[in-house]
Amino acid sequence: MIHSLTLSDVLAEHARSRPRETAAVDGDVRLTYPELDTRVSRLADALSALGVAPGERVLWLGQNSHAVLELLLACSRLGAVFCPANWRQSADELLFVVEDLTPRVVVWEPSEATTAARRAGPATAAWVRAGEEYERLLAGGVAREFAQVADTEPVLALYTAAFGGRPSAALLSSAALVAHSTSLLVVRQMEPGFTFLSSGPLFHVGTMMFCLATLQIGGVNVFTPAFDAEEVCRLVDTERVTQAFLFGPMIDAMLAVRPRGKYDLSSLRFVSHSEEWDELITVDDSPWCRSKMGGYGQTEVGGMLTFLGLAPGASGFAGRPSPLVQVRILGPGGAEVPVGEVGEICARGKSLFSGYFARPDLNADKFAYGWYHTGDLGRREPDGTITFIGPRLRMIKSGAENVYPAEVERALRSHPAVADAAVIGVPDERWHQAVKAVVVLGSGAEATAEELIGHVKGLLASYKKPREVVFADAIPRRGPAPDYDALDRAHGGGNYPGS
Amino acid sequence: MIHSLTLSDVLAEHARSRPRETAAVDGDVRLTYPELDTRVSRLADALSALGVAPGERVLWLGQNSHAVLELLLACSRLGAVFCPANWRQSADELLFVVEDLTPRVVVWEPSEATTAARRAGPATAAWVRAGEEYERLLAGGVAREFAQVADTEPVLALYTAAFGGRPSAALLSSAALVAHSTSLLVVRQMEPGFTFLSSGPLFHVGTMMFCLATLQIGGVNVFTPAFDAEEVCRLVDTERVTQAFLFGPMIDAMLAVRPRGKYDLSSLRFVSHSEEWDELITVDDSPWCRSKMGGYGQTEVGGMLTFLGLAPGASGFAGRPSPLVQVRILGPGGAEVPVGEVGEICARGKSLFSGYFARPDLNADKFAYGWYHTGDLGRREPDGTITFIGPRLRMIKSGAENVYPAEVERALRSHPAVADAAVIGVPDERWHQAVKAVVVLGSGAEATAEELIGHVKGLLASYKKPREVVFADAIPRRGPAPDYDALDRAHGGGNYPGS
Repeated sequence: MIHSLTLSDVLAEHARSRPRETAAVDGDVRLTYPELDTRVSRLADALSALGVAPGERVLWLGQNSHAVLELLLACSRLGAVFCPANWRQSADELLFVVEDLTPRVVVWEPSEATTAARRAGPATAAWVRAGEEYERLLAGGVAREFAQVADTEPVLALYTAAFGGRPSAALLSSAALVAHSTSLLVVRQMEPGFTFLSSGPLFHVGTMMFCLATLQIGGVNVFTPAFDAEEVCRLVDTERVTQAFLFGPMIDAMLAVRPRGKYDLSSLRFVSHSEEWDELITVDDSPWCRSKMGGYGQTEVGGMLTFLGLAPGASGFAGRPSPLVQVRILGPGGAEVPVGEVGEICARGKSLFSGYFARPDLNADKFAYGWYHTGDLGRREPDGTITFIGPRLRMIKSGAENVYPAEVERALRSHPAVADAAVIGVPDERWHQAVKAVVVLGSGAEATAEELIGHVKGLLASYKKPREVVFADAIPRRGPAPDYDALDRAHGGGNYPGS
Repeated sequence: MIHSLTLSDVLAEHARSRPRETAAVDGDVRLTYPELDTRVSRLADALSALGVAPGERVLWLGQNSHAVLELLLACSRLGAVFCPANWRQSADELLFVVEDLTPRVVVWEPSEATTAARRAGPATAAWVRAGEEYERLLAGGVAREFAQVADTEPVLALYTAAFGGRPSAALLSSAALVAHSTSLLVVRQMEPGFTFLSSGPLFHVGTMMFCLATLQIGGVNVFTPAFDAEEVCRLVDTERVTQAFLFGPMIDAMLAVRPRGKYDLSSLRFVSHSEEWDELITVDDSPWCRSKMGGYGQTEVGGMLTFLGLAPGASGFAGRPSPLVQVRILGPGGAEVPVGEVGEICARGKSLFSGYFARPDLNADKFAYGWYHTGDLGRREPDGTITFIGPRLRMIKSGAENVYPAEVERALRSHPAVADAAVIGVPDERWHQAVKAVVVLGSGAEATAEELIGHVKGLLASYKKPREVVFADAIPRRGPAPDYDALDRAHGGGNYPGS
């Protein structure tokens, strides 16, 4: 255990090394590191009293909050696993998560979907309402000592990878998360005092990874429930935020609220976007930031596997691997393919996940030949850099979200009028891609496009619903799978990730 | 093994990711990463044929060379342990190392001491001469595949900690070395292209740790046999060196060869030293470098445990712990002492060593209560930073070298004329401290100071010999140990590390 360093240990050290520094800001809540450490101990004790033993799961169904970080750290202190689930999901999707993860405790914010999931979910979980009930639970716990936990134990579960029609929870250990945070500290040259605003959702690894790297260096984590352009401007100003989770449309929305003069955004060290934006912020033109955090990643590798910043002037636009991993481009039999040839991007290393929760067969497939198989195709260029080609199986990228055609097709096929369905991504100016469905109705059955879109919306998170539905006589197939290339040609598909 | 990342794995990844980049420069030798990778595989195969199985030791008795890095990486590839020993040691000291470490292979540069150690050493080791014989050995090996090694296995042994009169070999695993390198990448903000000149000895963790961090980020390692002021100036100029192992007297020697105009030292990003020096180099005034690499460290923690750069404006001049460790100030019973009180600096974390080779009792002591005990006293300040007070047992710091009084006293007492002896450190303008011996001669025995200094020089590395010997009637004692405080008062001792 002498070499173990859990997230809980990181916090315990900061409580001693940074007794006066701010750890978390969320609305009226401001916590120093010692205050956060004490709250996490109380919370761990209270969760333990609710039956959260090592290896048990705690589920969060709500928007961003400092409670997300507290619950993660309390689970780390106990050796338990914390899962912040996508609160934008439908009741059906949330119910799947509750039944799949079998949490001992669910902390939830009431909404139509969470209320429905609570009503239908198994009676084995204790449901605790976020806010006052959560505070009462925490206040009832005692800040005591806890047994040392091995940092190889899983601590964070993030649902992803719905290629098979239903998502799976990727389990990340403290060792993997600490290693990934450290790789971000190296590549982004994060310094003490770094202040991160969780303006993206914390159930998304892209936001969570910066929240954790900020914790690692003893910086300040600022939480906001969800992206609101004016509130983000206000928080950047008042908290002197160094970085936030932002991409194109979010930046445009911030510019639309005209912060100039009203909000001082100069603390934001961010990539160049437009003349107007660049005048408001501090453009970070270091070779590291100029990369726009470019690279290649996914939840299962802890966030980023490769960084463009490690390969200035690179041929391969995914850059080079993080200093804490190895990457191999492997053929179907597990042999490395030659430079310049396409194979599956595979990896080993310190930041990799421990497998999916309760998916032994999938795990055996994904870890074949002693390498983690990302499911993505790539190529090693002659200069050693890596090019990401695209998912081995089809995926649509809408906004920052992954949409798995299989999952939307499964929802469409559950409608009584639908005989068959296939889903493609079509170019979209604002969101990069939009979801488009090609549907074959059953003999004599009738349904409108609106009806089918509403049906999917009732089952899945809203961003997964088709923007458009077209009807066809048959879905072209290549083997058992839809012939997506033919569908793209016939229905205007394109802009897929990596293309 | 999916989470394992050995030094050998780091090299294997660079061979793919950096096919054209220079890995090592040493005289006429220039190796790209793929060339280094192939040589390491050949060397590992050849060492394996000489009986170097996993866990076996390989010893280097010589000055700095690219062969040091190659042997370390080849041992990593085999799961063996590599030890670069202090070639400045006496024949007696070298023989102790050979008999203590029981290496399977010794690669040696001929000198009086190494030749004597070879003659007297055990016959179980294969002795390979550095240079041509080493090259022939390497050329006879085959660049084949090797079984994956767990990164928790020891790979580097560095002799240190001679408090008991004889040094012990601290064993560092790949996991610890990779973690420590990564902490240097974070704190020094090392970037790809970083070029390090090993102008200090590679048997010293202070040089080795930068050599390994440079490997980790895929930079360039430049080797020079030993410090030579003009040669260092020349190499900085021709190789555009970013950093070298340099401290005060070395910088003064470089200035004395008057490099201005002759050598361009502007690539050196280094700390401010004097007006003349600052004009020649690029003074790094980032908050990180301004720390002058300040902090607290030792071999057993992989190099540095705390960094001043993590604590701008700190009270405690050791700064704050590396992001990959925890530090506790513990009392004799293993309980944490309150803020502001002195206790032993103890640690846990990713960069810590695995214990000393073949020292089970010492290891049990050093890892008591689940924390590594550094043997140094320190204090946690109210701002959370750490102050280093000094060794719990006495140590002298002369130049960058540690001199353990017990070791020098042991050598003095082995002289037939000496009845008792104690050794203190006295302030020295150039080397910070000089060694001074207080000697009690046996009844009727005679010996001059010169004779005793010569005796110690014959047994120990030259820098450990007393500069001065005074004779006394008795050594004041406090229990079984010399009363060093009384000796310091009587004989002008001072300037001890931490004082």
